[in-house]
Amino acid sequence: MALEDPVPQTHAVPRRISVLGATGSVGCSTLDLIERDRAAYEIVALSAHANVDALIEQALRLRPEVAVIAREDLYEPLREGLAGTGIEAAAGEAALIEAAGRPADWVMAAIVGAAGLHPTLAAVEQGAHVALANKECLVCAGEFFLQAVARSGARLLPVDSEHNAIFQVLEAEALDRVDKIVLTASGGPFRTASLEEMRRATPAQAVAHPQWDMGAKISVDSATMMNKGLELIEAHHLFPVGEARIDILVHPQSIIHSMVAYADGSVLAQLGTPDMRIPIANTLAWPARMQTPAARLDLAQIGKLTFEAPDLKRFPALTLARNALQSGGAAPTILNAANEVAVAAFLAGKLGFLDIVQLVERLMDDLAGGMAAPDTLEGVMEIDRFVRQKAAERVQKCAV
Amino acid sequence: MALEDPVPQTHAVPRRISVLGATGSVGCSTLDLIERDRAAYEIVALSAHANVDALIEQALRLRPEVAVIAREDLYEPLREGLAGTGIEAAAGEAALIEAAGRPADWVMAAIVGAAGLHPTLAAVEQGAHVALANKECLVCAGEFFLQAVARSGARLLPVDSEHNAIFQVLEAEALDRVDKIVLTASGGPFRTASLEEMRRATPAQAVAHPQWDMGAKISVDSATMMNKGLELIEAHHLFPVGEARIDILVHPQSIIHSMVAYADGSVLAQLGTPDMRIPIANTLAWPARMQTPAARLDLAQIGKLTFEAPDLKRFPALTLARNALQSGGAAPTILNAANEVAVAAFLAGKLGFLDIVQLVERLMDDLAGGMAAPDTLEGVMEIDRFVRQKAAERVQKCAV
Repeated sequence: MALEDPVPQTHAVPRRISVLGATGSVGCSTLDLIERDRAAYEIVALSAHANVDALIEQALRLRPEVAVIAREDLYEPLREGLAGTGIEAAAGEAALIEAAGRPADWVMAAIVGAAGLHPTLAAVEQGAHVALANKECLVCAGEFFLQAVARSGARLLPVDSEHNAIFQVLEAEALDRVDKIVLTASGGPFRTASLEEMRRATPAQAVAHPQWDMGAKISVDSATMMNKGLELIEAHHLFPVGEARIDILVHPQSIIHSMVAYADGSVLAQLGTPDMRIPIANTLAWPARMQTPAARLDLAQIGKLTFEAPDLKRFPALTLARNALQSGGAAPTILNAANEVAVAAFLAGKLGFLDIVQLVERLMDDLAGGMAAPDTLEGVMEIDRFVRQKAAERVQKCAV
Repeated sequence: MALEDPVPQTHAVPRRISVLGATGSVGCSTLDLIERDRAAYEIVALSAHANVDALIEQALRLRPEVAVIAREDLYEPLREGLAGTGIEAAAGEAALIEAAGRPADWVMAAIVGAAGLHPTLAAVEQGAHVALANKECLVCAGEFFLQAVARSGARLLPVDSEHNAIFQVLEAEALDRVDKIVLTASGGPFRTASLEEMRRATPAQAVAHPQWDMGAKISVDSATMMNKGLELIEAHHLFPVGEARIDILVHPQSIIHSMVAYADGSVLAQLGTPDMRIPIANTLAWPARMQTPAARLDLAQIGKLTFEAPDLKRFPALTLARNALQSGGAAPTILNAANEVAVAAFLAGKLGFLDIVQLVERLMDDLAGGMAAPDTLEGVMEIDRFVRQKAAERVQKCAV
């Protein structure tokens, strides 16, 4: 095969694909890639939560079979916007789940939060390749979700840059010879801060992430390193590797997105510039690869990559997440729900920065003991609601 | 598959293997790995150049069908050393080629220099997996050698740490989407030296390689960066990638052994401690992996990896090697032969350090124009001898 030949189309036979959460950051990046090789894809469904104007605009460009807006009250504007186009308009959760379950080769599951659970499960149950950008499916409903994957024959393609990196260098022939998975972490904005500085940290300081441009919630999770704790839980579910074999390594430049160390001494790593189109493209073209316009990595220009062990004293979220995995049962679901409430309270000025993880720890101590792992989505949602309520009560008590 | 299960044997059915060049550094490392999982292998042949005592000792330990000493005058001590063991003793080039051609699943081709050409070709022609540690097969006889590989259905498994790294992260499904191969280079002992310091460099300074403990010839090649030029030629033959798509990146810590950059923006890399057992184990267990006792990589402890572009002014060998590839024909064969003579002359105090590459360049200019690529091994050897003679004459003229 000559490398100088013109770049071939990614898929000779067009792939039928759906994008759930199309108007968010991951969804938009996905559509950007699709439009660069339009003939390789047939669009089944596009969905959005509330941004109906963007959804209409995307649907007119990409001509899906169906466009779904999750908020039922936005059905009329969607219907009007697509009138006469032949594109089906639909609204509400049932419609979203129905659209996610329409036969497709590949589904991008990029709906944020617990709202993504049901539609992602529908995509899994039809046996598609599911590009997974929703964290809750694995963190809150891990075992239950993976059983559905195993039953349906669906294949999970992780989108998160760390898990996608591991996915790229984890060899199917050598799963029994994995020594360690090494999840890299930027260390966040407080990597070098003292405990006292962290105690006084404001929301503005906490959301100033050094490498990736992200939302406020995930930026705070990066500052507490809870995001790495949640990724540890995800990695444990995605890859057949025990918690003790997953290391976390602080790498402030975020160029090496993660690594797999094998029993022979080889360590394989995936590197790249911080552009989500790179992991998305990996899932879209898998097991082949496609062209993207992402900036090329130039290590000579970057000059230096550094590494350090995480400081578990200043970042107790890492230990909490390990404890949650070891406890099993509902512990990861509790961890996630309590953290969401605590971060929101911090962003609202009701909690100090160090109180975030402390509140999560208290709730884990109080609640995790008696709760079994949820075995239905309703069970997950119920625990989620219960923990959020308890967390909110505790925030009330702590609030300044 | 549970990772905590006992480590299984590498190959359920023992592999028949031969080690050519068994008493050298790569050969000894290979035997070390084999002996750690002895039941997984049946040893067909072991060979050595002249170290008959070591060969006897290895043969008594590993019980091959045949042990071959290349130097015919050492037949008697070998025969005596193996008397009564049932292990066949043989000597001389013809015996070596015969042994290399005995049916085997895997052959380590670790004979150094032009002496390795014929035996390695014999291993290729029987269609084995050939772990290739001999440079000359690709540098001097590249196209001819690869045609033999294609005809026989043999599979080359590169042993050199850089090429093995590329082999580990080059995806068969994505060969048409390789953007760049990035060969890393330590930069050698003169990475930060001035031209004036390099002009005055002594053999003792030139052989002080910062990362790997190697022989004098290859250490000088590392100091001129000619070794990286030769590796560029090898990479071009091993992987279907044009010379313009092979970059060289200076990385003084030699932890990242090389990388492949894909068209989607992903860069895959292999990392490890400087232990040749790691790449050897990769070829021995391929496509699975095996356990080795190689020291584990600890990036938190290493702390920092650095990168810089190579300085083509101080290291003109890199440009010479690219020119040799572009010229084609006999140019790479000439490059290699002239370099061997020049390095020997430098080590003998007959040439200055900067004269090494200058002499190679002169000989390339003088000779490369008229010579076609050799299409037999005899043709390769003939060009090699001719160039060595011309180079020696020129050394005579330059000598102080």
